[in-house]
Amino acid sequence: MERIDSLVKLLSRLPGIGGKSASRIAYHLIGADETYNKALGNAIATIKENIHFCPVCGAYAEADRCEYCLDEGRDKNLLCVVEQPQDVITIASSGIYNGLFHVLGGAINPLEGIGPDQLSFASLKQRVKEGSFKEVIIATNPTEEGDTSALYIRQILKPFDITVTRLASGLPIGGDLEYADRLTLARSIRGRVSF
Amino acid sequence: MERIDSLVKLLSRLPGIGGKSASRIAYHLIGADETYNKALGNAIATIKENIHFCPVCGAYAEADRCEYCLDEGRDKNLLCVVEQPQDVITIASSGIYNGLFHVLGGAINPLEGIGPDQLSFASLKQRVKEGSFKEVIIATNPTEEGDTSALYIRQILKPFDITVTRLASGLPIGGDLEYADRLTLARSIRGRVSF
Repeated sequence: MERIDSLVKLLSRLPGIGGKSASRIAYHLIGADETYNKALGNAIATIKENIHFCPVCGAYAEADRCEYCLDEGRDKNLLCVVEQPQDVITIASSGIYNGLFHVLGGAINPLEGIGPDQLSFASLKQRVKEGSFKEVIIATNPTEEGDTSALYIRQILKPFDITVTRLASGLPIGGDLEYADRLTLARSIRGRVSF
Repeated sequence: MERIDSLVKLLSRLPGIGGKSASRIAYHLIGADETYNKALGNAIATIKENIHFCPVCGAYAEADRCEYCLDEGRDKNLLCVVEQPQDVITIASSGIYNGLFHVLGGAINPLEGIGPDQLSFASLKQRVKEGSFKEVIIATNPTEEGDTSALYIRQILKPFDITVTRLASGLPIGGDLEYADRLTLARSIRGRVSF
């Protein structure tokens, strides 16, 4: 079945989808509603056409600027710096952050040849210089690359009279001490808070 | 992000894809190659258009008959009865079966109102009557419904001078006795073979 095989091959290139899941999805689609298949197929085929990067903050945008930069209701004193555009959506959908965003486009990773010049540090500095921000929250990943980028941000924002913070690291809520990795545990001990 | 949300919603209706995986796939697609997205989208949107059921055996077919019925190299003395069209592909791709197929379209399940009349038992009987089959291998699932269907097949094929067999049930190869469920273990003991 050439057509099924080809669909299975395409599906199994998606993240988290192995050969078995790809087959299962393909057979599901053969039995699924035609309208649904067309809607899904079209959404996949055109997703890149309709989404670009916000020229101000680098988040995904459907209009000329992203919904966060366009939203007058957001707190213009707060700026949250993230690595990737999807991190913006993750943080915005948490519902506890109502400020603006800045997407670096990755993290400093000398081993892969990603230095500060490949990321949007310059425009971050420019935005802080020209904006009304009182606090910059660094929300890069709690990895070596994310930490390096965080240190770099602290460095370039030093000239400004602005609070720079970093998301707390530690044990995940609902997690079990027994399953915490050594690094997370070490961070949660070093960063212990009075109680 | 209306477009991303709508893609995530469509993706999360696929089997085995939850909300988190759907988001992950959607972001992957935004960053993926446009040619790939178009190929995948088109394959999904058109999969039903190009696939129908073989009028002879009920397997998936791209031509007027399925590739197994059209293949002159397959053993016309052997007929394997399965529940679903995808089971044909599973058995064919195992590489150890070279006969023909018959798809029931499901299994007898009185609780869900599926009786023998809803399944292709009549055409199975007809094919056995008119064909040159020497053996019918029942490969329905090792479930209550599959077993009931197997008994029903044995019953309707009684008038014919033909061997009727059923796939062996027992411990899966590479499995661990400790993790075998009670029913599988019971079957493997009842069906023990001399060694």
